[in-house]
Amino acid sequence: MPAPHRTSLHLADVAIADGFWSPRRETVRTRTIPHQEARLREGGQFEALLLEPRSHDGDDRERFPIFWESDVAKWIEAASNVLAHGDHPELDAALDKAIELLAGAQQEDGYLNSYFTAVKPGKRFTDLRDAHELYCAGHLIEAGVAHYEATGKTTLLGIVRRYADLIAVEFGPGGPCEGGYDGHQEIELALVKLHRATNEQRYLDLALLLTDNRGRAPFYFDAEAERRGDTGYFGGHWSPGGAYARTSRRDREYHQTHAPVREQTEAVGHAVRAMYQYSAMADLALELGDQGLHDACERLWDDLVTTKLYVTGGIGADPSIEGFGKPYDLPDHTGYAETCAAIGLVFWAHRMMVLTGEAKYVDVLERALYNGVLAGASADGTEYFYGNPLASDGTVERSDWFDCACCPPNLARLLTSLEQYVYVGDAEGLYVNLYVTGAARLTHGGKRITVTQESDYPWNGDITLRVTEAEAPLPMALRLRLPEWAAGATVQVNGAPAEYRTENGYAVVDRTWTEGDRVDLTLPMAPVLVRADPRVLAAHGKVAIQRGPIVHCVEEIDNAAPVPRLAVARGGELRTEHVDGQDTVIAEGLVDGPAADGLYSTEPPAAAPTAIRTVPYYAWANRGKGTMAVWIRETP
Amino acid sequence: MPAPHRTSLHLADVAIADGFWSPRRETVRTRTIPHQEARLREGGQFEALLLEPRSHDGDDRERFPIFWESDVAKWIEAASNVLAHGDHPELDAALDKAIELLAGAQQEDGYLNSYFTAVKPGKRFTDLRDAHELYCAGHLIEAGVAHYEATGKTTLLGIVRRYADLIAVEFGPGGPCEGGYDGHQEIELALVKLHRATNEQRYLDLALLLTDNRGRAPFYFDAEAERRGDTGYFGGHWSPGGAYARTSRRDREYHQTHAPVREQTEAVGHAVRAMYQYSAMADLALELGDQGLHDACERLWDDLVTTKLYVTGGIGADPSIEGFGKPYDLPDHTGYAETCAAIGLVFWAHRMMVLTGEAKYVDVLERALYNGVLAGASADGTEYFYGNPLASDGTVERSDWFDCACCPPNLARLLTSLEQYVYVGDAEGLYVNLYVTGAARLTHGGKRITVTQESDYPWNGDITLRVTEAEAPLPMALRLRLPEWAAGATVQVNGAPAEYRTENGYAVVDRTWTEGDRVDLTLPMAPVLVRADPRVLAAHGKVAIQRGPIVHCVEEIDNAAPVPRLAVARGGELRTEHVDGQDTVIAEGLVDGPAADGLYSTEPPAAAPTAIRTVPYYAWANRGKGTMAVWIRETP
Repeated sequence: MPAPHRTSLHLADVAIADGFWSPRRETVRTRTIPHQEARLREGGQFEALLLEPRSHDGDDRERFPIFWESDVAKWIEAASNVLAHGDHPELDAALDKAIELLAGAQQEDGYLNSYFTAVKPGKRFTDLRDAHELYCAGHLIEAGVAHYEATGKTTLLGIVRRYADLIAVEFGPGGPCEGGYDGHQEIELALVKLHRATNEQRYLDLALLLTDNRGRAPFYFDAEAERRGDTGYFGGHWSPGGAYARTSRRDREYHQTHAPVREQTEAVGHAVRAMYQYSAMADLALELGDQGLHDACERLWDDLVTTKLYVTGGIGADPSIEGFGKPYDLPDHTGYAETCAAIGLVFWAHRMMVLTGEAKYVDVLERALYNGVLAGASADGTEYFYGNPLASDGTVERSDWFDCACCPPNLARLLTSLEQYVYVGDAEGLYVNLYVTGAARLTHGGKRITVTQESDYPWNGDITLRVTEAEAPLPMALRLRLPEWAAGATVQVNGAPAEYRTENGYAVVDRTWTEGDRVDLTLPMAPVLVRADPRVLAAHGKVAIQRGPIVHCVEEIDNAAPVPRLAVARGGELRTEHVDGQDTVIAEGLVDGPAADGLYSTEPPAAAPTAIRTVPYYAWANRGKGTMAVWIRETP
Repeated sequence: MPAPHRTSLHLADVAIADGFWSPRRETVRTRTIPHQEARLREGGQFEALLLEPRSHDGDDRERFPIFWESDVAKWIEAASNVLAHGDHPELDAALDKAIELLAGAQQEDGYLNSYFTAVKPGKRFTDLRDAHELYCAGHLIEAGVAHYEATGKTTLLGIVRRYADLIAVEFGPGGPCEGGYDGHQEIELALVKLHRATNEQRYLDLALLLTDNRGRAPFYFDAEAERRGDTGYFGGHWSPGGAYARTSRRDREYHQTHAPVREQTEAVGHAVRAMYQYSAMADLALELGDQGLHDACERLWDDLVTTKLYVTGGIGADPSIEGFGKPYDLPDHTGYAETCAAIGLVFWAHRMMVLTGEAKYVDVLERALYNGVLAGASADGTEYFYGNPLASDGTVERSDWFDCACCPPNLARLLTSLEQYVYVGDAEGLYVNLYVTGAARLTHGGKRITVTQESDYPWNGDITLRVTEAEAPLPMALRLRLPEWAAGATVQVNGAPAEYRTENGYAVVDRTWTEGDRVDLTLPMAPVLVRADPRVLAAHGKVAIQRGPIVHCVEEIDNAAPVPRLAVARGGELRTEHVDGQDTVIAEGLVDGPAADGLYSTEPPAAAPTAIRTVPYYAWANRGKGTMAVWIRETP
C-alpha cells in the first residue's frame, strides 16, 4: 500500500497571526466557544450524558437528544483546536469535565450514545437510516483525535477507540449490522483521522467497509426497517401517521444510497451528507491508492463545480432536502446553501488537493471559505445563518441558535483548525495554498525549515514569504497557488523576477533555500464583474462583483434604493475603497426612479446615475434588515 | 332619492355574435355548464339539498358542504343566462329540477342552507365570520334574479325573496343578529339586484345595513364568538387545537372589517371579498346618491389600480390570504391573482363606470376580462386555474376542479352575462364600453333604436357601428370608449371624419340618427412594450408585450430556449401575425447561449439573435407544461 505522499502540516507547526483571520479566530475563542458551551449546558446536551435526560414538554425528551453527542463533540473539537495554539487552563479543565461526562456515559462494551442508552435501551444500531448514531460516533472520534493532538491526552481518544472497536465488531463479518452503514455520513472520515492518529489499520478498514457497503443491494435501510418493524425515528417524528417510507430514487439520493459510491456520478441529495462522504472517499483514495474512489471523486467534483456551486461557494440549493437541486438550479432568494455544506466543501476540496496536488480545488475551497462559510456567523460571532441565500427581500436575519445546532460548532471547529488548510507538504517541499500571515515549520529532507508569510490578504495581493530558519542550504520546491482570478501574477525571489514553472495551478519555485531568502508574490486584485452560465436563471442579465477571493454583495443600507432598483452600468468603472477594515467596491450604476405615468406605462422608467456600494458577502446582515443581492442587474 | 341615471342594458336586449366571444360562450354552454352540472352531482352538492348529506370519509361531511349552495347557485345563474338568449328545453328542465331541490330544502320560515339545517341544526347565523351562510344566500339571490330575468319564472325568485325577508328580520332592529354582517361579502350586491328586480325598497335597505354595519365597533365577530363559545368553523377546521382567533389588524383586514367601509382607504385583505364589497358600495352609491360611499369607492379604486393591479388585470398577489399584498408587491412566479378576484374586479369596474360615466374603469375591466379572467379556463373550457401567476417555471398547469370550486362557475356566469358589460344606457343615449360584434336594442326618448357593431376585435381595431332600426329621426349621444392604449383613434360618420368631443374617455358623437347611419371607429393597435413602475420588483428591467387589450406572454414551446434565457431587444421591431385564430407578436430579441467558460466567468455569455414569439396570456398552458413569462428581460 503506497504511503500518502502529501499531508497537511500539523496544527502546532503552523502559526497564524493574520489581520483578517486572527481577530475572527479570537472571537471564536473568546465568544463563540463560551457561548456554545453555555448553550450546550442550557439545552441539556451535557446533562443528557448523565443518562437521565431531563424532561421537556411533551415528547421533546425523545425528539431532541438524537444528535446531541455531535454538538458536544464539535464543541470539544473546536476547543481542542484552540488548545493546540496556546495555554488556556480554564478551557482545558472544561474539556476534561466534558470528557469525564462522556466517560461516565460510555457503556461497559464501549457503546456511547445517551439517546439509545437512556431513552431507547436495547435499540442501538437498529435505525441507521435516521438515528444518527454513527454520525455522532464520528464526531466523537474527530473530537478525540483533535483533543489528543492538541493536548497529548488520551482521555477522549481512549474512549472513542473503544467505541470504534465496538463498531468494528458490530459491523464486521457475522456482526448484527453486517452490511450496514450510516444514514448521515461522518464516521468514515473520522475513522481515517483515527487511523492516522493511532496508525491502526483496522480503523481504515472499517472506514472502507462502511463506505463500500453504501448503496449496495440488497438495500440495508429496507432490511433494517423490516427487522425493526416500525417507520424509524424520522418516520415517527416527521409523519406521525407512520406512513413515512423512504423508497424512491429521490429518497435514496438524499442519503447518497442510490448506487454504490464508486458508481456515483452526480452530486445529489443532502449536501452535508454528500460532502462528508466525498471527503472520506478522497481520504481513502489517498491512503489506499484506490483509483476507483479517486475517479469517482473527480467525476462528482466536476459535476458539482460545473452545475451546482453558488458563486459564494455555497452548495445545496434545495431547502426541501437541504441538498442539491437540479443542474444550474441555483435560486438566489430561496436558495439554501447551508453553512455546514460550505464547510463540508472546504473539507472535501482540501482532501482533493492533497490527493491530486492541483490548485483548482483550493480555488473552490477559498471561494467557500471567504464567502459562503464566513457569512454563516455574525461579525460578533454569536449569531448564525443555517441557510445562506444570495438575495434577501429584507426579511432575512441570523439566529442565535438552532434546535438542530449543527452549523455554529462546525464553523468554530473549522476556524480554529484553519492552519491545516494553509500549507501542505510533500516529498518535494511545500505547497502554500492560502495566503494567511503567519509561519510554517517543517522538516524537509531531514532538515528543519521555517517559512513565514506576510500580507494584507484578502484586501491586497502583495504577499511576501521569507525563509527565517533553514538547516544548512536546503533544496526544496516552494509551490505558490496562483488563484484562478489572479491572471498576471508575478513572482520575485530576493528582489528579482524569478524563474518558475507553473504546474497544476501553482508557481513552483524550485531552488536551494537559505535563511533570509525572500519571495514576493503579487496577485492582481482589480474588482471584476462575474457572470453566470445562462442556465443559472437567477443570475440572468445580472453580474456579481468580486475582488480577489471576496465575492461582494449590495445591501440596501449603503445605497440609494432597495437593491432590486439598482443596476450596474456595463463598462462602468469599478473602484475599491477600504473602509472599517473591509473593502467596498463602488460601481457606476443606475437607480430606477419613480414611474412617470402610473403603475404601467409604455415609457421606460426614469433612471438616475448612482454609485452602487458593495460589502463583502460574508459581512452582510450585520446592520439590521434590508434588501440584499449578490447578483445585480446590469444595464447597457 | 335620485333614480340611477345610467344602467346596463338588459341581457335580452343585447345580442352577441362575435368571432372572439361567441365560440367561448358556446363552449361554456355546451361543455362548461354540463361539466359543472356533472361535478355538482358527483360532488354531492345537489344531494346535500335533500338534507341527508351522504357520508364522506372522516369529517368530510362537516368540512365540505359549507359553500355548497353557492356552487349550485352560480351554476343556476350561468345556465339562466344561457336561457336568456335561446331556447334550451333540457337546460330549462334541469334548472327546474335544481330549483325544486332548493324549494324542498327551504324551511318553513324561509331559511335555506343545507349545512346548518342537516348538520348543525340550531346554529344558524351564529358564525357569520366563517360559515359563509350569507355568502351562499347572496349567490342564491343572484341566481333567483337571473333565473327570473331569463325565464320570467318566479320559482327561484320567490324562494330567495322569502329567504331575504327572513334575513331582514334576523338582522333587523331587535333581531338576534342585529349589528351583524357577513364574513364573505356577496349578499350586499345580490340584495341590490333583488331590489332592482322587485322594486322593493327593503332589499336595498338591508344591503345598506349590512354594508354599514361592517367594521363598526364593537366588533361583531368577537361578540358572536363569545356568544357561541367556540372558535368558529375555520377555527375548528384549520387549527384543530382551537387556538385560532382572529384579532389582529391583518385578520380584520382579511374580511375588510378593520374600519367602517366609508373610512376604508386601501384595498386590503381577501381580494374576492373586497371586490364584492366594493361592488355593493358602488351599487349603493348609485342607487342612493350616497356621496360617502362614492368617495370611498374612488379612494379604494385609486389605491388598487396605482399599486396592486397586475398588468393582466389580476389582483390579490398574496397566496397566504388569497388577497392583496403590500403596494407594488406583485410577484410573478408566486403571485396569486385568483380567477374569481379578476372576475370580481370586472364586477366592480363595471359598477364604477355606471356610477361615474368614466371610461377609465372600463379600461381596467377590459384588461381583466381579456387577460386575467380568460386565463382562468383552458381553451376547451373544462380545466381551470384558481391562481394565475404571471410566470411559470414549467410546473404550473390547470386542474379540472377544486374542492373549493368557486372559480369555474364564476367564470361561466360572467361569460354568459357578457352582454351587460358591452353597453350602458343613460338619459343622453348609449355608451359602447366593449367592442363585441352584435347588437343593442334600446328605447331612447320613447323611441326604439337598434345599433349593431361589427369588428374583428381584439385582433383588429376597425369597428363599424350601424343604426339598423330607428323610430323616426332620433337625437342621441353615442359614446364610444377610447381605450387608454389607443392613442390616435379616429371616428368617421357615414364615411366622413366626424365632429366629436372627448369626454371622460369617450368619443361622444351627438347627433340625430336615422336608419342606415354608420360610424367607423379606428383604434390603432400596434404592439407595444409595457413597463412597470420600478417599485414592482418582479418587472425590473423587463417589459410586457401588449397589443390592443391583449397582454401577451412568452411560452417555451414557441421559442428557442426556456423563457428566462430570452431577452427582448430594446428598440427592436415588433411584428404581429395572426395564427390559429389568435395573435402572436414576434419580437426581435436575444437568446443567451451556453457559457463560454464554466459556471462563472468574467466574460458576458454569448447571446444569439432570436425571434421571440408570444401568445395571448389567456391562451397559455394549453399545450403542455413549460416555462412562461409575461415580464421578459429587455436588452440594450
